[in-house]
Amino acid sequence: REQHYSRQCVLNIGGGWIEAQNSRGEVGLVPEDYIEVSSTDGGLHSVSSLSLSLSLSLSLSLSLSLFPILDLSFLCFFHYSRLLPLSLTLFQASNGNDPWSVWNADPSGGSNNNWASNPEGTQTGKAAADPWGSVAQGHPQAYQGPGEDDEWDDEWDDMKSTGGYAESESGDGGAMQRGGAHATSMKISLNKFPGFSKSGPELYLLCKQLAKGKDKLPIYMGEVGPVWSYPETQLDCVVADPKKGSKMYGLKSYIEYQITPSTTNRPVNHRYKHFDWLYERLLDKFGSAIPIPSLPDKQVTGRFEEEFIKMRMERLQGWMTRMCRHPVVSSSEVFQLFLTYKDEKDWKMGKRKAEKDETVGVMIFSTIEPEAPDLDPVEVEQKCEQFSRFTKAMDDGVKEILTVGHEHWKRCTGPLPKEYQRIGKAFQNLSSVFNSSGYQGESTLTDAMTEAGKTYEEIGQMFAEQPKKDLHFLMETNNEYKGLLGCFPDTIGVHKAAIDKVKEADKLVATSKITPQDKVTMAKRVSTMSYTLQAEMNHFHSNRIYDYNRVMQLYLEEQVKFYETIAAKLRQAHGQFTTM
Amino acid sequence: REQHYSRQCVLNIGGGWIEAQNSRGEVGLVPEDYIEVSSTDGGLHSVSSLSLSLSLSLSLSLSLSLFPILDLSFLCFFHYSRLLPLSLTLFQASNGNDPWSVWNADPSGGSNNNWASNPEGTQTGKAAADPWGSVAQGHPQAYQGPGEDDEWDDEWDDMKSTGGYAESESGDGGAMQRGGAHATSMKISLNKFPGFSKSGPELYLLCKQLAKGKDKLPIYMGEVGPVWSYPETQLDCVVADPKKGSKMYGLKSYIEYQITPSTTNRPVNHRYKHFDWLYERLLDKFGSAIPIPSLPDKQVTGRFEEEFIKMRMERLQGWMTRMCRHPVVSSSEVFQLFLTYKDEKDWKMGKRKAEKDETVGVMIFSTIEPEAPDLDPVEVEQKCEQFSRFTKAMDDGVKEILTVGHEHWKRCTGPLPKEYQRIGKAFQNLSSVFNSSGYQGESTLTDAMTEAGKTYEEIGQMFAEQPKKDLHFLMETNNEYKGLLGCFPDTIGVHKAAIDKVKEADKLVATSKITPQDKVTMAKRVSTMSYTLQAEMNHFHSNRIYDYNRVMQLYLEEQVKFYETIAAKLRQAHGQFTTM
Repeated sequence: REQHYSRQCVLNIGGGWIEAQNSRGEVGLVPEDYIEVSSTDGGLHSVSSLSLSLSLSLSLSLSLSLFPILDLSFLCFFHYSRLLPLSLTLFQASNGNDPWSVWNADPSGGSNNNWASNPEGTQTGKAAADPWGSVAQGHPQAYQGPGEDDEWDDEWDDMKSTGGYAESESGDGGAMQRGGAHATSMKISLNKFPGFSKSGPELYLLCKQLAKGKDKLPIYMGEVGPVWSYPETQLDCVVADPKKGSKMYGLKSYIEYQITPSTTNRPVNHRYKHFDWLYERLLDKFGSAIPIPSLPDKQVTGRFEEEFIKMRMERLQGWMTRMCRHPVVSSSEVFQLFLTYKDEKDWKMGKRKAEKDETVGVMIFSTIEPEAPDLDPVEVEQKCEQFSRFTKAMDDGVKEILTVGHEHWKRCTGPLPKEYQRIGKAFQNLSSVFNSSGYQGESTLTDAMTEAGKTYEEIGQMFAEQPKKDLHFLMETNNEYKGLLGCFPDTIGVHKAAIDKVKEADKLVATSKITPQDKVTMAKRVSTMSYTLQAEMNHFHSNRIYDYNRVMQLYLEEQVKFYETIAAKLRQAHGQFTTM
Repeated sequence: REQHYSRQCVLNIGGGWIEAQNSRGEVGLVPEDYIEVSSTDGGLHSVSSLSLSLSLSLSLSLSLSLFPILDLSFLCFFHYSRLLPLSLTLFQASNGNDPWSVWNADPSGGSNNNWASNPEGTQTGKAAADPWGSVAQGHPQAYQGPGEDDEWDDEWDDMKSTGGYAESESGDGGAMQRGGAHATSMKISLNKFPGFSKSGPELYLLCKQLAKGKDKLPIYMGEVGPVWSYPETQLDCVVADPKKGSKMYGLKSYIEYQITPSTTNRPVNHRYKHFDWLYERLLDKFGSAIPIPSLPDKQVTGRFEEEFIKMRMERLQGWMTRMCRHPVVSSSEVFQLFLTYKDEKDWKMGKRKAEKDETVGVMIFSTIEPEAPDLDPVEVEQKCEQFSRFTKAMDDGVKEILTVGHEHWKRCTGPLPKEYQRIGKAFQNLSSVFNSSGYQGESTLTDAMTEAGKTYEEIGQMFAEQPKKDLHFLMETNNEYKGLLGCFPDTIGVHKAAIDKVKEADKLVATSKITPQDKVTMAKRVSTMSYTLQAEMNHFHSNRIYDYNRVMQLYLEEQVKFYETIAAKLRQAHGQFTTM
């Protein structure tokens, strides 16, 4: 899926555009500024220097339309892009129509190669978003003109606060783990919490003193086993009312969403970049213990199209709803800040505080307090294996649904309506032939056949429109779960690493690397981790059962309506015919 | 569509099989006896001599299965096939799966090249069955393992009566027109009444004395214009109870159908060859005035399969019903003989009498008596043109329906069920993953998802089976009409030739080729022909309106049931899900 430019395949054609050829030989235009960056990381994905020659490509007119919105705002970006270790990677569009329309900028370079050490054997780079390798499904909304939005023209205007964020780089502990690339990546997410596999779970397992006091996260024994502490009323929020705003005398424009939490019922405004900031904070803080699903995909083209905005809002709503439903995430300070900040100053201060939070990465386990006896390491391992198997199996199942759903979508919107339209036309054509017979008493039949023909044309139209009414939600839910399940290998990987560490505890004691007391502490802490994982799995199962019941109900309900409407239309058409 | 063997493309591989290659380079096996014939007509389509070499083809095992029933019965045929001027032609199967599975033997060779003189400009040879050239649709029953049945092993046992038929060759007038090839073709129909374009309509227009008396066919002026005289109660018959019989100590076997007319309610038995004999008689006698549709296609393979027998019976029933509905055909002596012969002797005598009938070809018009004033030749021509346009347009419309119906059939029985099955499987697979969660209270969801999955599998099955319940009848009716419409160019051609003859009457009078009285007679007789055509068109329209109302009702009724059943099944599946 991922393709890079070699310098041989890049050609400056003037006017700020570079013609580039991907590994499949497909040629397209890329804004010069996207590529002309100094590669400081020397990573696999970067284009270190470009030999540019001047020539004009025939594909200019063809490809320019791909970047209609990247006008002057690019110049603004340009200044900053030079600072970035930016590697440009090209992803094939999932619908296969235009491999140049979907872009992703991955600033992490080789810095998140810690994926190579992932116990599930996952891939490096962007492939980590699909950690089980087989990408059964791209973007299911093939009808949408899909893609990803890096919002490059959208991120520079908060550099001060990013500067504030960069400050925390000089901090210690978990904050340090974010790494340099992250600090300057300006909202281009690393996708994963960096560094935990560098330090590994031993940072938590062996740390001398655990945080005490206010921010403790209890785990109780519920009917189904370990469970988080759930609030009496579940937090909820509504993402609505997307508004286009602009800055810099109209040079820059963006979409602002209104988010209204059920607690305060007072709306706050956020742009996509703020969601992304929140995502980064939640990932840093909870990612070792709680799968934090990625935000909806970014997209370069069509960013101000109604359809796209609606889709992004729907997916941001889905993401927020899932975060609201999580008792730990929803009650966290950073999440509450996002939903309930009072004014700009409040927001800025909250941001800085959140960025300085040191209880991130594996240290989140230090705040968890299971109210239950310590678990035997054997049982811990069994549970971990069980969850690993289940999430892997469910990932396969979900991808299968996405694949067949995608096929079905294509058929419903492609050949099927055409076929019903042709049937309808054939009836109508025969009807108009009959009408020319000159035979008297012809009109009852010809009227009926015309109506039957129109009915089949309508049915064709219905088939084409139906997926948006039912399959869409089935796909969205499964897509969401695919994203969620994609986080589990990381989460489970932390646990497996911890279990391995405990297994070698005896050896470490023998070689005096740790004390016998350390070993006892490690066993206790791995038990805490296991309770966390179990609470999280129980949370996942409970949500999964609710979500799938709900989406299947919705799907089948719409399917019933669909087939009933067809039957009713055909019954109506049937009534027009007569055999005396 | 039609392909012939050149001698270079034929290869004897031993064991009675010949490997042949058609013009598209596709290779298949043909029974040796099918090809090794002496070509006496030297026609375009014949294989005059074969240079056979011995070798063994890899395609042997692949192709042998095509002729599972052609065992010993071939040996019987072999003796006779040597006598025939037989050209072997290969037709592409309409479903495109196996171009070797559909065969047709056309013994007429070049003898029916009178088609070249057809005013509609139709093709020679087999293409005449599709006189408008563009064959939109082959055999719609692609699911059936289609083909044509020449019943070669079925025709020799009545050689005595064929001999009796051959006797009539020595007769005069219309009987003479059948031509020599026909006499030895042994039920392989010429498809069309031969010879009338040799003699042309002038045989009737200028004949000195018209037959008088008993067999007169009146035409009345009805509400819709000229109409045949319709009986008070319409004749009907039931074709049923196909029984396999055998002769020659089991070497030969055949199917006998039971036909019960509504008049006598006494069943008579007939084999396909008898139907074919009847068809030939009706074609000879009425073909110039009344379109006599061909019998259902012949078929080499699968002749004793239940499905094929059922299909042939259904089509013979359709053909008989159409003949019964026609007031002229149904009241004819030969048709009555077929339906009501008392015993074998009665049947044989009746056959001989029918074969000696001299009122055949254009002479049928001599028996028609319109009870209305003579028509102006201009009006005659206008009517003729109108019918020509209409039947051509309807032929196009019918073929369009057959084409889209065929496409729809393929989709309904091919990709659609597979897709619904895959959807069903995906739901069931996810359900069984869920079932492995170890989470309590899982079963409601997993049961519901399994049922939903099974429901979609059932829906897939329903899609696959539905065409047999509704589209089948729509296709059959349109196929029947395609056949019927294919007869009109001939019928209309006779009229156009007659109109042309009348147009040149003045010149013929001037050159003393005819008398002035002949001219008056010709105008009167062409008026009679026009009344006949109009009566026939009105009969056609009335039947068409009934048939299409009926088949559309049936189609839509089954479609309504189909979609309602799907909706009900999905509603049932929907009820299994719960969100508390």
